[in-house]
Amino acid sequence: MKIEKRWIAAFAIMTLVAALGLFWPAPIETAAIKAQFGTTEQIVPADVAWLLTASCLVLLMTPGLSFFYGGMVGKKNVISTMLQSFICLGVVTLLWIVVGFSLAFGDPIGFKIGAGFYSIVGNPGTFAFMDHVGVLPNHKMASTIPFMLFALFQMKFAVITPAIITGSFAERVRFISYLLFICLFTLFIYAPLCHSVWHPNGILGTYFGVKDFAGGTVVHMSAGFAALAGVIVLGKRKNSNHIPTNIPFVLLGTGMLWFGWFGFNAGSALAANGTAAMAFATTTTASAAAMLTWIFFERLNGRKVSALGACIGAVVGLVAITPAAGYVTVPESIFFGFITAIVSNLVLNAKAMKKIDDTLDVFACHGVGGIMGMILTAIFAQGENASLLHGGWNVFAHHMAALGIVSAFTFFGAMILFKVTNAIIPLRVSEESEHIGLDLSQHDESLDHHKTDPMGIIDLINK
Amino acid sequence: MKIEKRWIAAFAIMTLVAALGLFWPAPIETAAIKAQFGTTEQIVPADVAWLLTASCLVLLMTPGLSFFYGGMVGKKNVISTMLQSFICLGVVTLLWIVVGFSLAFGDPIGFKIGAGFYSIVGNPGTFAFMDHVGVLPNHKMASTIPFMLFALFQMKFAVITPAIITGSFAERVRFISYLLFICLFTLFIYAPLCHSVWHPNGILGTYFGVKDFAGGTVVHMSAGFAALAGVIVLGKRKNSNHIPTNIPFVLLGTGMLWFGWFGFNAGSALAANGTAAMAFATTTTASAAAMLTWIFFERLNGRKVSALGACIGAVVGLVAITPAAGYVTVPESIFFGFITAIVSNLVLNAKAMKKIDDTLDVFACHGVGGIMGMILTAIFAQGENASLLHGGWNVFAHHMAALGIVSAFTFFGAMILFKVTNAIIPLRVSEESEHIGLDLSQHDESLDHHKTDPMGIIDLINK
Amino acid sequence: MKIEKRWIAAFAIMTLVAALGLFWPAPIETAAIKAQFGTTEQIVPADVAWLLTASCLVLLMTPGLSFFYGGMVGKKNVISTMLQSFICLGVVTLLWIVVGFSLAFGDPIGFKIGAGFYSIVGNPGTFAFMDHVGVLPNHKMASTIPFMLFALFQMKFAVITPAIITGSFAERVRFISYLLFICLFTLFIYAPLCHSVWHPNGILGTYFGVKDFAGGTVVHMSAGFAALAGVIVLGKRKNSNHIPTNIPFVLLGTGMLWFGWFGFNAGSALAANGTAAMAFATTTTASAAAMLTWIFFERLNGRKVSALGACIGAVVGLVAITPAAGYVTVPESIFFGFITAIVSNLVLNAKAMKKIDDTLDVFACHGVGGIMGMILTAIFAQGENASLLHGGWNVFAHHMAALGIVSAFTFFGAMILFKVTNAIIPLRVSEESEHIGLDLSQHDESLDHHKTDPMGIIDLINK
Repeated sequence: MKIEKRWIAAFAIMTLVAALGLFWPAPIETAAIKAQFGTTEQIVPADVAWLLTASCLVLLMTPGLSFFYGGMVGKKNVISTMLQSFICLGVVTLLWIVVGFSLAFGDPIGFKIGAGFYSIVGNPGTFAFMDHVGVLPNHKMASTIPFMLFALFQMKFAVITPAIITGSFAERVRFISYLLFICLFTLFIYAPLCHSVWHPNGILGTYFGVKDFAGGTVVHMSAGFAALAGVIVLGKRKNSNHIPTNIPFVLLGTGMLWFGWFGFNAGSALAANGTAAMAFATTTTASAAAMLTWIFFERLNGRKVSALGACIGAVVGLVAITPAAGYVTVPESIFFGFITAIVSNLVLNAKAMKKIDDTLDVFACHGVGGIMGMILTAIFAQGENASLLHGGWNVFAHHMAALGIVSAFTFFGAMILFKVTNAIIPLRVSEESEHIGLDLSQHDESLDHHKTDPMGIIDLINK
Repeated sequence: MKIEKRWIAAFAIMTLVAALGLFWPAPIETAAIKAQFGTTEQIVPADVAWLLTASCLVLLMTPGLSFFYGGMVGKKNVISTMLQSFICLGVVTLLWIVVGFSLAFGDPIGFKIGAGFYSIVGNPGTFAFMDHVGVLPNHKMASTIPFMLFALFQMKFAVITPAIITGSFAERVRFISYLLFICLFTLFIYAPLCHSVWHPNGILGTYFGVKDFAGGTVVHMSAGFAALAGVIVLGKRKNSNHIPTNIPFVLLGTGMLWFGWFGFNAGSALAANGTAAMAFATTTTASAAAMLTWIFFERLNGRKVSALGACIGAVVGLVAITPAAGYVTVPESIFFGFITAIVSNLVLNAKAMKKIDDTLDVFACHGVGGIMGMILTAIFAQGENASLLHGGWNVFAHHMAALGIVSAFTFFGAMILFKVTNAIIPLRVSEESEHIGLDLSQHDESLDHHKTDPMGIIDLINK
Repeated sequence: MKIEKRWIAAFAIMTLVAALGLFWPAPIETAAIKAQFGTTEQIVPADVAWLLTASCLVLLMTPGLSFFYGGMVGKKNVISTMLQSFICLGVVTLLWIVVGFSLAFGDPIGFKIGAGFYSIVGNPGTFAFMDHVGVLPNHKMASTIPFMLFALFQMKFAVITPAIITGSFAERVRFISYLLFICLFTLFIYAPLCHSVWHPNGILGTYFGVKDFAGGTVVHMSAGFAALAGVIVLGKRKNSNHIPTNIPFVLLGTGMLWFGWFGFNAGSALAANGTAAMAFATTTTASAAAMLTWIFFERLNGRKVSALGACIGAVVGLVAITPAAGYVTVPESIFFGFITAIVSNLVLNAKAMKKIDDTLDVFACHGVGGIMGMILTAIFAQGENASLLHGGWNVFAHHMAALGIVSAFTFFGAMILFKVTNAIIPLRVSEESEHIGLDLSQHDESLDHHKTDPMGIIDLINK
């Protein structure tokens, strides 16, 4: 088998990164840098305990997503779909260490509007190879835990976001192109968006006043719109009929996601406190409400109550509450789950969506769920000038403007990145590869290659 | 497909709950209510960190149970069995928010016996829609963590209890009837029992002095007896021969249950302290002892050592130690696991049990395990007047009286609720639905609908 | 079926242990013993919260390993392979309670060299049945958490180590012989090695200055060399051709292992502090680097990028960083993952290794990964006289001498134990049992006994 240059390039990059790691000099801690950090006395050990746990939980979401998606695709594409999620634990983790965290939380790069300075991305050199990121807490970003722990917690968010996208173009994407795309996506969409929303100077968080407690906008909207762009660029599958291969895998994935989501949402309090408990409560409540609403709504529309529906409903509820988790009451969170489940379900079953062949309905779930969450948060979030109900129409208008900006940025941004990727390495596998399935064509693996004959039928026939 | 009124009713109830949530007024915090709660200064962050984690762990037990049970049933009922556990995460969570937590821990409703006031259930209005349940700790019930966190931790116990029941009548129950039953069970059996054992005024905990560290009585005995009532009401399956479909799923489920059980038992210390560590120790030890005892005992009885046996044994050990986890020594916990494994195994293999067709031996495992745990706890529990060895026969007699009351209440109570459910919607599926399996008949899903032909046999035959 | 005496003996031992537990007297707390322990005031609750969590996480690694290995073996040996890991949760847990923890951390038994006292094993009576192991912290070994929690955290390490070995002789070992072997291994290899490295007087940790942050030497090298000894003693399988049965299980296992490994490595800080965060960071980074390096390196060698490769690579990275997790920088950890992935891959594909038939490449992954980790740690570890770069060649030479001692001790020690086991009960199953697979021959269970005929082919033929 001839080794394509693209794989040699991949190995060369990996070797380069390792060599850089080996010889990376200890960073120079200037007074200006030291001033950004506190002392170990300011660390609250209980917050460390909870954030270590929360980071573990969010890590587990990516394998969870592997099973959530893997169980839904056709039998010839289970392993490839799972690997597409799983590999993000490798690619995005390394990228985050090298430059991603800097782009997301490095020194702000932006512009002035009036008296304010608003940034759109971080300086890629600030925390390159985790320079200055250590055991001391950072005054501005996480004042009670080691800054490294903050970087790790954020890393897990960056890891799962491109993994979410994969569901839309499942069963037809080339693996190496996909690896290239997730690098581009992390660098040019995820990191700037994360910075704009969550960095203390970020334009969406400050100028537009966007509230995003745990990543409804940063993670789910961005993934949802990138998914939509992906299916448009890649086109429909040749054969889009399939039945989910393994519903128990979907249930397992949903369980792992729900479990991990507590780290995602309650961990976003960045402390072991009452806010974390409240976020936990709204999270599990919205998910429960959406799960039940989904299955009952499906039944009213003439379909049977299914395990798949219960799982999708639960995840839609989790998506919807994510931006609001720490900002709304438990009774409100029931409504979040209820209304988002209905809207997502309607979009999922809309004829327009059927046409584009978003394999696992990523846009309908994460995109629409993220949009609904952002709108509902902009209506209900508590706090001074936080939302329509607690600040008036002007606040709401700013949030809606931000919604438009984020939608356009993530959709068109992702479309450009898909086209760029496609120009470098074709995104779509050959028709033949698609026909035999990505498991065999991309990875030489299969759920089906155990062509055993337990009943001895072949013997029977040959007799 | 005609939509039955029962599903319209289900959706209407869900809509009503969401609407109530949307317009639910902020509760009025009277002085009397305020007096029940402490300040944020009284919160111990480390306890919050551990209880957040423990709540996550207990949540994961319900998907874990899905796999534990799902792997054991026949191939036509795997998905439906899994969904029956999983759906509790939706139904019971919402019910708990709306009224369940109030029934379990609301203002005590009861009667006086001499100078004491003994309650049997909570006021359903006290904490409706989580009124007054927020970031402040409650003096009486959980003085170092936000009361919301206590409500969440307890929620996860309420969620898994009806899920445990499902194993007994697996492969023959109608899904919508089952949903109705778990609502009734939670309201009329679980919540009052939980209140009577764990509320500071609860009659079983105070008058009878019942010690139940982590729910051996509240969770396992109640589920075990409800399971027994269930099989009696529903009757035997038409075809009760089957071989477990997927032993690896059972192993996975057992792993998840064991992992989650540390949250269940060590979390029941409600603090990150020495008691939690001791409860962790007795839990893992009893489980290990029961696992080994079970497989060796099976072998002595002429059966092979099986993975299934190891899993069931481990779970029986976990059940047995649950009421005693924080009250006994590690050497004693070995005996808990050993003796309960033998007794459960004998019951499981008793001819009488074979007759009633408890599909997954829920009564033999959880019922008998719970009873054994309660008896052993009443013998060994440390503390003043805690047990036979630390308080004498009078104490033990009170506990045994309570054992009788709990057994009768849960068994006959569940039987009435099954009959009520059956009168509203027939519990049992049609004979035809049972024959084709619940996966297809109830949910239009199947492990088997991938009727592929990897060996090309059909072609071979047709040649 | 005739019950062999060996099973009667097993049940008798279990009964004896339970009886001992029942009548075990409360230990006498002498002044000398009391002096070893602090007070509850010295406990740091946040450290307790994190170590409780970490212990849960490490427990989950053993079921994780079940899936990692179980998915890789042939279809006739999946359940048996999984059970071999899983059963360690029973056997090693109990052994640890009874005598294992004492052997590992009991009063040091050793000899003087000059002014120093160097120990090689603990007194088996010190903490028998957890005597003296309770809620108080131990000054020397874990001064901020209950000593019981330390014993539990260490227990989980002891549990997984023999489970790792199983991959090498999968598909041919007799279950009861295996149970005997893991007891011997835990008593005679794991416990003394653990003591020598981690006890405050242990000879490897003090005299040789070995740094092993989280068990690279104690867990992975010992398991790797025992695996090598195992295949040599047991010999090759009759039919060593097989394709992995269930790649999704391997992915699940890897996810569970990675998740649990944070408990393993970050928990080894024994506190919720900056060191834990740093260990978490190096762990996830090394794993990510090794995962990518592995798949790219495989591709350069003409194989396809596979999910199996990604999983094995990730685990190799985790193994490599384990001894160094808290001692090196994040950039260095990239190199750890990179170089170990390449070396392990080369060994795995070496012709010499193919000859011995290490079924799941345990030596190439855990043995070589452990060796590489130990060498790299001896080069890079920070701290006074910690390594070549921070202490010079003399320090490095001591570590390399220790490497040789550990290799020889674990390899030849395990070989002797395998031969002893074999003399008592033959290790290898009969040829016929091997042919029909261990699932059926050892456990009467099978993935394949659902010999259904979904396509109705048999009917078709008979027509």
